[in-house]
Amino acid sequence: MKKVAIVMGSDSDLPVMKESAEILEDFAVKYEMTVISAHRTPAFAEEFASSAEERGLEVIIAGAGKAAHLAGVLAAYTTIPVIGVPIKTSTLGGADSLYSMVQMPAGVPVATVALNGAKNAGLLALQILGTADKKLREDFRVYKSQMAEKVKETANKLEEMGYREYLKNKDK
Amino acid sequence: MKKVAIVMGSDSDLPVMKESAEILEDFAVKYEMTVISAHRTPAFAEEFASSAEERGLEVIIAGAGKAAHLAGVLAAYTTIPVIGVPIKTSTLGGADSLYSMVQMPAGVPVATVALNGAKNAGLLALQILGTADKKLREDFRVYKSQMAEKVKETANKLEEMGYREYLKNKDK
Amino acid sequence: MKKVAIVMGSDSDLPVMKESAEILEDFAVKYEMTVISAHRTPAFAEEFASSAEERGLEVIIAGAGKAAHLAGVLAAYTTIPVIGVPIKTSTLGGADSLYSMVQMPAGVPVATVALNGAKNAGLLALQILGTADKKLREDFRVYKSQMAEKVKETANKLEEMGYREYLKNKDK
Amino acid sequence: MKKVAIVMGSDSDLPVMKESAEILEDFAVKYEMTVISAHRTPAFAEEFASSAEERGLEVIIAGAGKAAHLAGVLAAYTTIPVIGVPIKTSTLGGADSLYSMVQMPAGVPVATVALNGAKNAGLLALQILGTADKKLREDFRVYKSQMAEKVKETANKLEEMGYREYLKNKDK
Amino acid sequence: MKKVAIVMGSDSDLPVMKESAEILEDFAVKYEMTVISAHRTPAFAEEFASSAEERGLEVIIAGAGKAAHLAGVLAAYTTIPVIGVPIKTSTLGGADSLYSMVQMPAGVPVATVALNGAKNAGLLALQILGTADKKLREDFRVYKSQMAEKVKETANKLEEMGYREYLKNKDK
Amino acid sequence: MKKVAIVMGSDSDLPVMKESAEILEDFAVKYEMTVISAHRTPAFAEEFASSAEERGLEVIIAGAGKAAHLAGVLAAYTTIPVIGVPIKTSTLGGADSLYSMVQMPAGVPVATVALNGAKNAGLLALQILGTADKKLREDFRVYKSQMAEKVKETANKLEEMGYREYLKNKDK
Amino acid sequence: MKKVAIVMGSDSDLPVMKESAEILEDFAVKYEMTVISAHRTPAFAEEFASSAEERGLEVIIAGAGKAAHLAGVLAAYTTIPVIGVPIKTSTLGGADSLYSMVQMPAGVPVATVALNGAKNAGLLALQILGTADKKLREDFRVYKSQMAEKVKETANKLEEMGYREYLKNKDK
Amino acid sequence: MKKVAIVMGSDSDLPVMKESAEILEDFAVKYEMTVISAHRTPAFAEEFASSAEERGLEVIIAGAGKAAHLAGVLAAYTTIPVIGVPIKTSTLGGADSLYSMVQMPAGVPVATVALNGAKNAGLLALQILGTADKKLREDFRVYKSQMAEKVKETANKLEEMGYREYLKNKDK
Repeated sequence: MKKVAIVMGSDSDLPVMKESAEILEDFAVKYEMTVISAHRTPAFAEEFASSAEERGLEVIIAGAGKAAHLAGVLAAYTTIPVIGVPIKTSTLGGADSLYSMVQMPAGVPVATVALNGAKNAGLLALQILGTADKKLREDFRVYKSQMAEKVKETANKLEEMGYREYLKNKDK
Repeated sequence: MKKVAIVMGSDSDLPVMKESAEILEDFAVKYEMTVISAHRTPAFAEEFASSAEERGLEVIIAGAGKAAHLAGVLAAYTTIPVIGVPIKTSTLGGADSLYSMVQMPAGVPVATVALNGAKNAGLLALQILGTADKKLREDFRVYKSQMAEKVKETANKLEEMGYREYLKNKDK
Repeated sequence: MKKVAIVMGSDSDLPVMKESAEILEDFAVKYEMTVISAHRTPAFAEEFASSAEERGLEVIIAGAGKAAHLAGVLAAYTTIPVIGVPIKTSTLGGADSLYSMVQMPAGVPVATVALNGAKNAGLLALQILGTADKKLREDFRVYKSQMAEKVKETANKLEEMGYREYLKNKDK
Repeated sequence: MKKVAIVMGSDSDLPVMKESAEILEDFAVKYEMTVISAHRTPAFAEEFASSAEERGLEVIIAGAGKAAHLAGVLAAYTTIPVIGVPIKTSTLGGADSLYSMVQMPAGVPVATVALNGAKNAGLLALQILGTADKKLREDFRVYKSQMAEKVKETANKLEEMGYREYLKNKDK
Repeated sequence: MKKVAIVMGSDSDLPVMKESAEILEDFAVKYEMTVISAHRTPAFAEEFASSAEERGLEVIIAGAGKAAHLAGVLAAYTTIPVIGVPIKTSTLGGADSLYSMVQMPAGVPVATVALNGAKNAGLLALQILGTADKKLREDFRVYKSQMAEKVKETANKLEEMGYREYLKNKDK
Repeated sequence: MKKVAIVMGSDSDLPVMKESAEILEDFAVKYEMTVISAHRTPAFAEEFASSAEERGLEVIIAGAGKAAHLAGVLAAYTTIPVIGVPIKTSTLGGADSLYSMVQMPAGVPVATVALNGAKNAGLLALQILGTADKKLREDFRVYKSQMAEKVKETANKLEEMGYREYLKNKDK
Repeated sequence: MKKVAIVMGSDSDLPVMKESAEILEDFAVKYEMTVISAHRTPAFAEEFASSAEERGLEVIIAGAGKAAHLAGVLAAYTTIPVIGVPIKTSTLGGADSLYSMVQMPAGVPVATVALNGAKNAGLLALQILGTADKKLREDFRVYKSQMAEKVKETANKLEEMGYREYLKNKDK
Repeated sequence: MKKVAIVMGSDSDLPVMKESAEILEDFAVKYEMTVISAHRTPAFAEEFASSAEERGLEVIIAGAGKAAHLAGVLAAYTTIPVIGVPIKTSTLGGADSLYSMVQMPAGVPVATVALNGAKNAGLLALQILGTADKKLREDFRVYKSQMAEKVKETANKLEEMGYREYLKNKDK
């Protein structure tokens, strides 16, 4: 059974939103992925969100840009947590997407991550599922250690090589 | 039959949104007014917008603040024009309300007016109805002349009195 | 007789503003299109807007960027609805164009759409004309269904293919 | 055992952050509440977050303003979900608090809610706990229905009274 | 003969714009002052600006807020320099007024001063007149010296008293 | 004798600032042009501005970006009008350059034009010189007519060709 | 001998800037305090900064608002570190003061602290002096511990009392 | 012994941050350089900052982008001055990085320089070290003179060549 749904307002958001999918795959969490437009397919949005819980979904990740209502509309129709990924478009530095998503009224929260933060949306979904599934939480702990290791390796490499050599190597 | 609906996301928007009603009353246009929350009463929003046309409505005016999705959600469910009034709240100078309302995706326009521009929303509704009702358009022309007259009177008074006298008079 | 005028501040706005024209053509609405600069040809702006109604125009769509006064100037001289398209330029993320267009004073509304939202301006013009022409409204309803269909097709394709396959196909 | 921790950067945030506590009390969720400064008590922040999981906490809610690092610092030291409440201060319209909280780097998400959105932070915590505790999710569903009911009551009252009467009543 | 015109979009701008008048009076420069709305009295705006030069005006100072088109509209119809004073209103921190005024297209400059900078608008008018009237320029030089003197006196007082005493004295 | 000085903070501003020079050349106004850094060559800035008037300069045009203090620093040391051109750089959408230039304190105005508005700075200089030199004002009037003519030609061409043909022609 | 100078653009900045003085007094660091306007008293600014080093000053703290050039102008004329305090005024949320101060060009840094951050400017001055005076650094360490202690006390009090009691006590 | 540490949140910041290193090398100041992530390696950040002073470091330069907490986190754990370099990323025009870094709470200052201002961070570090090492201060004075010389040379070249020739030469 799919635990997480990844939805986006348009297929132009896919190059960003696939990072949520990649994270869930890395942790072997089953997910579904689709395109729903809050404004062009409102009935589908309602249907999707209203039935999300009974279909066994535990978290919805929704990515959208500009007047980014998708996450809020889905949150209106469900009780499971909705994570919002504001997509950076070319206007207003992305402030439009961010404000439309995060400034939700009392009663209907959207758990908003950074502009284009689809990877973090995937990790946050994991953390939420970890509330019921301690194995996932353990896996996330390992992931965090590895991430720290990688940063340390980078640090060591830079310290050893010096920045001139390091930058030359990177360009290759 | 009501031609215009004035809806708002919360009754805290009423002190602003009543200016739309006052304009419509001045022009003897029948209207209805209610509170609909795009997020707290999504089913009511859908029902309201889906049936708007068959109930004889020709224009919807929607006021909302922060992640102001109301106008967009109503526009998604109807073919009649939706005018959006972004309500200024205390955060982000009102940019959140404005961006959430105006930055709609292709296919579903919202005719956005100024922050707290409920009076102009009423006038724009009139102008739209004027497409089918030339009497209204004529009345709007008269309204514009009177408005110009009032500005001219102010100008004359200021020119005659000088600014010192004028400001003293105003304070009274 | 032309029902809609599409005007723009400079021919550099044409690649955006032609989307209004394309929409009107799709719906067989007659339109005229020209270039008027609120600041460089103010007399022409006045003349154009003052005579708009008697020439049979029902809606004006005006696109302009930066200190985007065009829509407001035209609205000052006419009683028919004016739709504003703020053009995104390279400065200030487009906030200059948007604010100059939407923040109109009480008495003279401009129906503002999204930055570069010329397509939606065309659709909003349709919706306004639909107040008097129920056939157009019906056509818009069909358009909305088709738009929803297209989103559903995209959704189905993504669901079937999975995102990896889908992205590969798109790149071709 | 406490399931949720509510922390804030300063006791000046308490009038906002108590709304998280009130929600949790309404749903009979045990919580603890304290003050931690990411910058003035960094060692305490580390100690608090590092031990959060073993002390049985499932969610942390963190409120802070300006260069609002608290949520991010706690998230760095724990695997349980951290919800961030950007506190609106008097500078920059609150954009400083919001950007500092939401724009987290890949690997360490903070689930950000609206400026001063402590009530929604409480509800989001509930939704997260609801992943493991279906009773809570059920309670949230009831809460949402009641919320919708209240909006409908407001709507009915406004429709019956008209806006003039309604506003007079409110002022009392 | 009046050399300078001070115009404003509404009499609500008068408490700011009177500072331009006070400066001109201090320097014994004759001025006229009136209210013109670019949007509500466009014909008057045109008439005023078109005849400005032949009436002997050398500079126009125009104050307006929000979609602040007044200065630009006047500049479109005249060859004499137009100084713009963006009026700070309660929305968007004043960015709307500023952007609408300063971001003029090539060909039609507006000499923009600070938000609510009516005093500086008066001084800038003086400096412009000073191009033809060396006496005015000389008077402005004296003004600048006196201004510097006043700052120095403040500095001396603060240095002598210390800040505690200074602040106590100021409160009186 | 040179009437206008064009100064800029760095030679990287030259591709923008040369537009001021081109305008002055078109109107046969003598100018000088140099590079002065308010921060790197403060003594030169002082010397330059302090002696500007006695060297016969009537207007200074100053272009600078980011913390764009150049225009303000020059204005501090002279009585002749200073026109500021905020240069758009890659940060903050240009708001840094604009705010640093336009928000001058009472007593020391800078006549600010649009971001990268060097052409308008040249024209504004002309208008200022026109106060003493009616021939220049007359030449500016002709310039404005020609500018209007050019816009009208563009309009005619677009009207005749239609947008499809027009855009094809432009691409050639 | 005075080690630190606290300067401000106007005596209206004093209620903010006195916090720098209070910190320096707490640590028994000798300071001088005065008012210098970068624009109204440029010669004094130059004189002050040029002689700062030889008068024995080691750090300058400069507070200013809007087009806040003071810190940059002083930095241009000295080799000792200049700390900038952007003063929040009522326009643009304070972004004007902040951008004008922090966005300095390469070669002339200003060490900028938060909007109205005069207290931190005092502490940063201490830290800088601490490079040569280890006793000061030691005192700062103690200060930091005490600050942490105070936060911990607040935390303990809140934990013991609960938020309801705590808020009641605070109101008294 | 190393006097200065240059740290950055990710090796993608290196092309910017190396400018700090180049400055320090030019002045023969010993430095170390590494990568520390406030969020991914919080324990390393603590360890690094806590031991900074005893390892003989006198200044830390920290560069980071988006929710740029690195400088603040290091400042929390040390008494030596921390200079922050907000890195411009592609979102929000860089305002996120800048606000996260500069808006520090009372008690824990970060000396913030311009977006991508790594060169100035290096110079500010020099100025701070100059408090204890007068030789460095002297070297900085020479540097400033040379910088002024270079600007003057540019100015001379532009004055001699004229802008047309100058721009042609530059393109070569």
